[in-house]
This record gives sequence, structure tokens and C-alpha cells, in this order.
Amino acid sequence: MAGAEWKSLEECLEKHLPLPDLQEVKRVLYGKELRSLDLPREAFEAASREDFELQGYAFEAAKEQLRRPRIVHVGLVQNRTPLPADAPVAEQVSALHRRIKAIVEVAAMCGVNIICFQEAWTMPFAFCTREKLPWTEFAESAEDGPTTRFCQKLAKNHDMVVVSPILERDSEHGDVLWNTAVVISNSGAVLGKTRKNHIPRVGDFNESTYYMEGNLGHPVFQTQFGRISVNICYGRHHPLNWLMYSINGAEIIFNPSATIGALSESLWPIEARNAAIANHCFTCAINRVGTVNVFLCSLKAHQDFGYFYGSSYVAAPDGSRTPGLSRSQDGLLVAKLDLNLCQQVNDVWNFKMTGRYEMYARELAEAVKPNYRPTIVKE
Amino acid sequence: MAGAEWKSLEECLEKHLPLPDLQEVKRVLYGKELRSLDLPREAFEAASREDFELQGYAFEAAKEQLRRPRIVHVGLVQNRTPLPADAPVAEQVSALHRRIKAIVEVAAMCGVNIICFQEAWTMPFAFCTREKLPWTEFAESAEDGPTTRFCQKLAKNHDMVVVSPILERDSEHGDVLWNTAVVISNSGAVLGKTRKNHIPRVGDFNESTYYMEGNLGHPVFQTQFGRISVNICYGRHHPLNWLMYSINGAEIIFNPSATIGALSESLWPIEARNAAIANHCFTCAINRVGTVNVFLCSLKAHQDFGYFYGSSYVAAPDGSRTPGLSRSQDGLLVAKLDLNLCQQVNDVWNFKMTGRYEMYARELAEAVKPNYRPTIVKE
Repeated sequence: MAGAEWKSLEECLEKHLPLPDLQEVKRVLYGKELRSLDLPREAFEAASREDFELQGYAFEAAKEQLRRPRIVHVGLVQNRTPLPADAPVAEQVSALHRRIKAIVEVAAMCGVNIICFQEAWTMPFAFCTREKLPWTEFAESAEDGPTTRFCQKLAKNHDMVVVSPILERDSEHGDVLWNTAVVISNSGAVLGKTRKNHIPRVGDFNESTYYMEGNLGHPVFQTQFGRISVNICYGRHHPLNWLMYSINGAEIIFNPSATIGALSESLWPIEARNAAIANHCFTCAINRVGTVNVFLCSLKAHQDFGYFYGSSYVAAPDGSRTPGLSRSQDGLLVAKLDLNLCQQVNDVWNFKMTGRYEMYARELAEAVKPNYRPTIVKE
Repeated sequence: MAGAEWKSLEECLEKHLPLPDLQEVKRVLYGKELRSLDLPREAFEAASREDFELQGYAFEAAKEQLRRPRIVHVGLVQNRTPLPADAPVAEQVSALHRRIKAIVEVAAMCGVNIICFQEAWTMPFAFCTREKLPWTEFAESAEDGPTTRFCQKLAKNHDMVVVSPILERDSEHGDVLWNTAVVISNSGAVLGKTRKNHIPRVGDFNESTYYMEGNLGHPVFQTQFGRISVNICYGRHHPLNWLMYSINGAEIIFNPSATIGALSESLWPIEARNAAIANHCFTCAINRVGTVNVFLCSLKAHQDFGYFYGSSYVAAPDGSRTPGLSRSQDGLLVAKLDLNLCQQVNDVWNFKMTGRYEMYARELAEAVKPNYRPTIVKE
């Protein structure tokens, strides 16, 4: 494996393929080539000064007679943790707040209306360690913790909806932890929160050491700019999770994640994009970048956890998608969406209309019974 | 669009990318590079003589202590219709029987245990026309029609399970039509049949002009070589369809299809592969090749229906996949699978264990009620 230094699939293809072939490859791989957004020069300058990548693309929809285009600019942020994992907790959080503030300011220059950060963005991704302190100290109240207050300021200052995935301390229910995303309205008010519905137990990596399956169902948040949901990380492997957000009306589903190379990189371009296709909605897949040694004590075998490969992207209901951000650099991906595309594709492909959900509700209810006998035909 | 003459994504990448980049691209796009199968020389010679492409790949699994490797060779057949659509029906069927017989003989040389043909393989894909005669004359009894009898001979002669997707005439239920796959055991006995569960109404293309949603649920066929299911064509857009086959125990799900370029080519590499990942099973996506003018009467606007882009492939539970067959040439894809991989990946990723199907059965049952109120959070 070439590792983190291999920048991106797209850069490699652009470099080596003759133009007519490149166009065919993009058509087969990405559905079509999207128009690059004409982002302001000062945004690129600021991104360069702050050392993060900035890319922008536009998804278009057909003109309709009765509805105006429903344009929204989303921002996806991927970043490494600026300080080492053994720095004091408060300093790590402050450094991340500063880093995110700088990126959000560039997003504001680009007209971003809804921004989403990566999973558990205020901390190093330490859930692989099984250690408790100091990691559990990164947990905060979703309603009025310092990070939520910080995001409320950002939201109000920039008239921007902020999706802030954090480790939540739930003081009203036995002080347990949750993997939560807080959704903050562009007014600055906390609109609500949603929790990770599926908790990974992958190989010897088990996040239920820290928190259990979310108990808030599949809420959709009606923002001024469109209806959004948040499917956190491992939930992207579960088609039913995407489906229920979509059935509840989500037009954009964010998927803030933290996932490493060897295990999942070839699944990454498939799953969120399949969800956009299957559910006639936009999906925004966000991954971290960088490597960080989060192992403070034992577990020698795990010192090399691997690197987070970035590659954040947006996929559309028609199956088209943006290129990925870099595999190794911090970045902001801006996508201009016309949400009318969701209903337009729905009306063409009709997956909801042909979905036979009554049959599946019945079949699933049978299948989960302990005495269920699968339908197996034998000679 | 370069059209049907652009042979394949893989050929293009092999031609232009330097080796180290090619390896990274394959890792990101395909998970890993699969070993080519060492197929017999006479098989390649026969394929060349009969003018179809032959490719073979092997998927491997880890060695276990208690189970032996569970090796099965599957064959996927993609082909054009040899005669024009206005030739006499009986001649078209005979020509297709002859063509398939020749390909199956090569499959037998390659040790194929289970073979699957494309959707409605005995006829031109005329469901776009909305015309009835002569197309409905291609319908046959699934139990003892001439095509089933033909496949029984093939199965017995070659000790091969045959999956034969046909247009079915159901004389016991009002002579209606179904889009059906007949599964024939390697003993030559008809093991059973399964029907297309989701019927496309895509744009102005509506197959329910001919047949309705299948009523046989999600059967799995226990063959000597493993447990298989058949998800016909448009069913691949429905994650719940794949899921129910998998819950019933399918280790290999065939997806015989007929789908054209402009609409679906960028979705094609995504959907069946996502299903293999999400359900810890192998999926085999089969598409036709070629263009055929099936419009016998009116509908001027539809004279150019486009071309079927082939690109048949096999995807594995670990997310890896074979290259696609050609976009334009008849072909046989042979894949050697170790079915132990399904349980191995299941035990690593645990999507079934973490799937929360009880919650979804409940949520779906609510969501289909006419008075359902989606969970929408407003400020």
C-alpha cells in the first residue's frame, strides 16, 4: 500500500489519462463531470494561508415551472487533530476550536449555508484504545457544553447551520456517554440532537466500550435551507438506517466518520453513494485525515492503528458525485446543491413508490423472531 | 459519450497508468487485485472461435481449522441476441439456445458449478415497447417449457446448477405473465423458481405493462455448491430486497439484468457491490450487451433505446470485485469463490449482529401507515 502520501484517485487519473478517456472514466465512475464552483479568490488565499485544501462543485437540477431552484451550499470539513493526543485535554479542545473557526470563516466566504464537522471532532479518535481517562474527559453536554456554545456563536455570526458531532455526556440519564451530533440552527439556537444508531464491533475494535446504540430514532431537522439528517460513521454500513432518515424526509444526509485505510478504503466510495442513489437524496461523507498515536498504555499490537484517509465527498440522488478531498490534507469541500433534484430523481426512478415497504415490515418482523425459519428450497 | 465502442474501464486504466499508480487505483476502486484464474487453453480457444470474451478470477478466504474451504466456481453470461427482433419467434429462441449452449460448454471446461444467464434471456428486451405480440409469445412455463427442458439437459450433462431467467406464462393463475428465474439443480431437476420483486416504472418505461411484482417472497435455493438467490434486475436498487435474501441465508445472490447506458451506467458498479458489502455475501451482476431495434410499431421517439453496456462483474463480502466484462462483446466471467469468506467477513464487520432489525421492523410498520407523521424537528 502506497500509504497516506498518495494524494487522491482523481489527481492520479487527471495526470495520466488522455482527455477522451478521462471523460469516459469520469462518466462511468462518477456519472458525469460536475461544474467547478467559482469560489472567491480570498477564500483560496485564506485556505492556502491556513494550509487546507479547498474544493467546490455544483450539482444542477432541471428547471421547473412551479418551484424555484432550491439552492443550498453545504460545507464538509476534514481535519487532523492539531495537538498530540497526550497534550492536556483543554488545550487539545481549544486547538481544535481554533482550527475549525478558521475553516468555518473560509466556508462563510464561500456562502456555505450548512456545515458539518467530522465524527467526535473535538477529540483524537481514541475509541480503539479501550482506555477511559483521559478520553472520557472530552465528553460534553450536547445542550450547553463549551463546544455547543462555540458552535452557536459560529452559527449566528455566519448565518450558518452547524452540525457538530461530539462525544456527549448525558447527565440526565445516569451520566452515560453517547456518540451524538448536535444540530444548531443558523439562528444560533440548538435545533436538536441525534445519536449514532449502530455501534461498531469490528474485529477487536468495539466502541460499545464507551457508548451504546442511539435511542433517538431517525430525526430529520427542518432548517431554513432544507431538511437534513445525520447518519454517524458505522451507520453508513446499514442501508435501513439511511432509508429511515429518507422516509422521514431528509434531503441531505451527513455521514461524519472516522475510518482507516486498510479496512474500509475500498468501501468508502460505495456506501454513502449507494445511499444517495437508493434514497433519492444527497449524502455527504466526511472522514478524518492523519495518524495520531492515541495509545497511552498497553495493547502493543495496536500502536499502529493506521491513518485516516480523508477522501470526503458529496453524492447526489442521480448517482453523480464530487471528487474526494485529499487523502492526507485538511480540507473544506463546498457543494452547491439544488434540492429539487431529489424529487426529480424520485419521480424518474420511483424507488420509494416501488419499495414494497409493507412486505418488508412484515418479513423483517417475522425474521427477527427466535423461531424464524428462513425460506430455503431444497431438492 | 463515447458509446459502446469504449471497451472497459479496466482496459483503459491498464493501458495508461504506471504500475505503482495502477496498483493504488485498483486498491481504492476494487479493494485489492484478484488473482487471475488459470483457465484451460482449450476454453480460451473455444471462446475465441465462438467470438466471446472469457475472463476468470479467484476470491480467497482465510484457512480455518474446522471447515474446509468451500470452493464454488460461478459463471456469468452476457450476450447479445443473435437474430434481429423481427425474425420469427421460434427462430430467435433457437438461436439463443444454440448460443447459450456453446457458452455453457466453455463454462463446463472451466469447471463452473453454477451458471446464470441474463434477464429474460430467451428474447430481445422488448419491455420498453409496450407492444404485446409478438413479445408475449416468448413467455413459457417455468416448470416444463422448452427453455426449462433445454436447461435441464445442460444442467445434467455438465453437472451444473443453471439459473435461467425467463418470461413466465403462469397457466395456473389466469395465464398471467411473470418475470421469473428458474433454478435447475445439477441433477437436472427443477429446484424451484423465484420472481422479480420490484417492477420498474422508470420515466416512461413501465414493465408493469407486462407483469406485476413477484409473489414468491425471498426464497433461497440450497444447491450442492452453496445457498443462492436471484434478485432480478430492478430489484438491485432496493437494499431491502438484497437484505431479505441474505437474512434467508443466501451466500451468492445473482442479479440478472438488462440496463442501458445513459440512465444507469454510473450506478452499475455501485449497487450490487454495496449489496455484497452490506450483506456479507457474494453478488453477481449480469447485464446484456448490444443494441437491438425492438420497436415494431409506433413510438418514434423511442427508436433509439440505447445500448446495453455489459460490464458484468462479481463482488465479494469484503468489498473486493472482479473487473467488468466488456461493454460491448458477449462474454463469460468465471469466478472461483471460497464461500467461507461470507462468514469470516460477517464475524469481522458484524452488520447482521448490529443491524437492529427489530427497531426497523417497527419503524417501517409505522411508516407505511397512511396517517404516519415523519419525525421532523423544527425550530
